[in-house]
Amino acid sequence: MRKYQAHIYVTLRPSVLDPAGTAVMSGLQHMGYDTVEQVRIGKYIELSLSAQDEEIARQQLDLICDQLLANPVIENYRFDLVEQRDGVTA
Amino acid sequence: MRKYQAHIYVTLRPSVLDPAGTAVMSGLQHMGYDTVEQVRIGKYIELSLSAQDEEIARQQLDLICDQLLANPVIENYRFDLVEQRDGVTA
Repeated sequence: MRKYQAHIYVTLRPSVLDPAGTAVMSGLQHMGYDTVEQVRIGKYIELSLSAQDEEIARQQLDLICDQLLANPVIENYRFDLVEQRDGVTA
Repeated sequence: MRKYQAHIYVTLRPSVLDPAGTAVMSGLQHMGYDTVEQVRIGKYIELSLSAQDEEIARQQLDLICDQLLANPVIENYRFDLVEQRDGVTA
């Protein structure tokens, strides 16, 4: 079994309104940051897992994202995967 | 003024407990994903802004992160910045 570190990015689909992002942008403009034009807020998840190879790790991560981490109706996800060797990120 | 797209990652400091991450890991293990070893949940923010050059854009982003997007007592942040030209990401 090999160890992998995944960085998962879950974002709202472009067609879905983001009230939290709009609130942050409004707050920034009130604070004087009037050069900010758009803010979209998503989730960033760091997950470590073991798998026999990278292909299997990617399959597991797709299932995990579809079933628990992202809501496929309104969210997209993508992830990076790096193998860890001897406790050091490859 | 140039347009920039920033990708901001806000994560809990390693010494801070992450109950949401622990709940997700526990959920995954109950669903049978017993190869998952650690889950940490953070925020991922996409922000577009205008600035005269990249140095000024980075200074503004540091202020925005410190003042609004991250809680420096318990969170770290980092960001990537890319310039956008003619509506296309450089």
